[in-house]
Amino acid sequence: MKTKPPGALGQLEPLAAQLAAITGADKIKLNKPAMLIFAGDHGIADEGVSIAPPEVTQQMVRNFIHGGAAINCFCQVAGISLHIIDAGIRHPVSSPRIINRSLGPGTRNIAVAPAMSRKSAEEGLEAGAEVARQRLENGSNILAFGEMGIGNTSSASALLSALSGQRASATCGRGTGIDDDTYRKKMVLIEQAIARHQADTKTVPQDLVGTLASLGGFEIVQMTGAMLAAAERQAIVLVDGFIASVAALVAVRMAPEARGYMVFCHQSEEQAHRLILEELNASPLLKLDLRLGEGTGAALAFPLLQAAQSFYNYMSSFDSAGVTSV
Amino acid sequence: MKTKPPGALGQLEPLAAQLAAITGADKIKLNKPAMLIFAGDHGIADEGVSIAPPEVTQQMVRNFIHGGAAINCFCQVAGISLHIIDAGIRHPVSSPRIINRSLGPGTRNIAVAPAMSRKSAEEGLEAGAEVARQRLENGSNILAFGEMGIGNTSSASALLSALSGQRASATCGRGTGIDDDTYRKKMVLIEQAIARHQADTKTVPQDLVGTLASLGGFEIVQMTGAMLAAAERQAIVLVDGFIASVAALVAVRMAPEARGYMVFCHQSEEQAHRLILEELNASPLLKLDLRLGEGTGAALAFPLLQAAQSFYNYMSSFDSAGVTSV
Repeated sequence: MKTKPPGALGQLEPLAAQLAAITGADKIKLNKPAMLIFAGDHGIADEGVSIAPPEVTQQMVRNFIHGGAAINCFCQVAGISLHIIDAGIRHPVSSPRIINRSLGPGTRNIAVAPAMSRKSAEEGLEAGAEVARQRLENGSNILAFGEMGIGNTSSASALLSALSGQRASATCGRGTGIDDDTYRKKMVLIEQAIARHQADTKTVPQDLVGTLASLGGFEIVQMTGAMLAAAERQAIVLVDGFIASVAALVAVRMAPEARGYMVFCHQSEEQAHRLILEELNASPLLKLDLRLGEGTGAALAFPLLQAAQSFYNYMSSFDSAGVTSV
Repeated sequence: MKTKPPGALGQLEPLAAQLAAITGADKIKLNKPAMLIFAGDHGIADEGVSIAPPEVTQQMVRNFIHGGAAINCFCQVAGISLHIIDAGIRHPVSSPRIINRSLGPGTRNIAVAPAMSRKSAEEGLEAGAEVARQRLENGSNILAFGEMGIGNTSSASALLSALSGQRASATCGRGTGIDDDTYRKKMVLIEQAIARHQADTKTVPQDLVGTLASLGGFEIVQMTGAMLAAAERQAIVLVDGFIASVAALVAVRMAPEARGYMVFCHQSEEQAHRLILEELNASPLLKLDLRLGEGTGAALAFPLLQAAQSFYNYMSSFDSAGVTSV
């Protein structure tokens, strides 16, 4: 028993218990935290459902490489290594710092066609898993997941609709801040994607790989695979906001035992995020009104894991400190 | 303009703007962060209104000195120096690590008598100010404030009632977790303290030093003085949970310009804390269900200030990164 009233450290207490259960009950270990940002383009972005045009995906990947994005700052200050994966962007960036796992120049427009072939989805799951395993073999036991992909909130909303049975009005948010007209257009397109998906797959609604192929994005598929591989090897999985949470939801549907390895970091402003968190029985550590993606919420939450580690590993018990127990 | 949609970093954006306004608009500086924990005993604790007996104040001060408390862990991991001030505990701890500014062996029971003399309150404000100035002269430009004192939620609630005009039922919480009977008893005693205070001071309701003397605690008075001194010298003031927020409220009533230097770190579970935050128009950075005091919320929030500093100082603009502005 530590020198504090029971429960007085609030959410840090179940967090510490979870980290101890994952990394060893004696001492919590947080080794070589690594942020994996998966980038992918989305055919639906050509419909103009985002605040930014599709070319921003490539520009932001370049910005990550050059260290100028918010996530670079947050990883640097938190001591997290940053790894950028091209999961399938339209215009690839040539740099030795890019991990190239491209599944193609962006997905097809999910409103009118499956995002990718089933084979691509399978390859994407394995590509993501391999990227994760590489980090774990390098000594990491904690992986954070972020994403970049103009249009990817549409894909995530459609996936969430398919998994939860909810209409687009419940699963569709405003991304990084679209106006009313664009929002209505986005909902119509997502409804169209869901209807198209249901028509395509009505015989096998529980086919999760098929659902990913139909509605996913290359970066979402690879994130799902990477999360599954991390959990399988008993690493801590830091889940960022809405997009990463959809990938986490798919992963948990595929392998329910993966849930125990996941720490939910930030409750995003996307209205649909609450829905996912309920499905996953998750209470994120932070609620800072972030709506950027890139893994920013996960990077910002990491110091709380270090704090949980610190009190679990080093704080005195009442007995050893000579404090009257309460 | 940074490489992100406007507002996408949520609460970190006004935080960065505030820090820049305080420390210089060119680059945010966070120099030698220091945590000051003020400890004091409370006569009202003898009534048994807390989960822990009064001797725990001394035991926890000893625990701080030996490095075994939660706040030691959190300060260590966040790179914050820790300073323990004896503002007036019943049984002093002899250690070179204690900053001795004792105003006496605890306050009187505020339910039946003024907590301290007016002279003690004045001395306490100056003692706290002097402790703060010492840190600033040592190169700190950011001070965090924590406290330890069995019974101090009663004193804080009574002060809040006096300042806000609210009854004890609105300002009195359960501290670190008392049961229903103790909670009712605590409310009765606080109502008694407020009535006694009003009878004593009915001619000068705006006398803040008199109110502190009547209902305060030695650690609350010194925290108020220290916060005022820090703000006066344009340092950042990190305000922890309920008790520290009451000290902050008194400070802002004394010098409204102090508000601009304060960063509110954690929204505590104390129902009354919301009331103070409304009075101060404050949105704390964290909400982790902590109910420990000691400055734990402030220490846990500090990495968010570092993150705000990092993106403000180092993140690319759209122009410099070649990203299409949105």
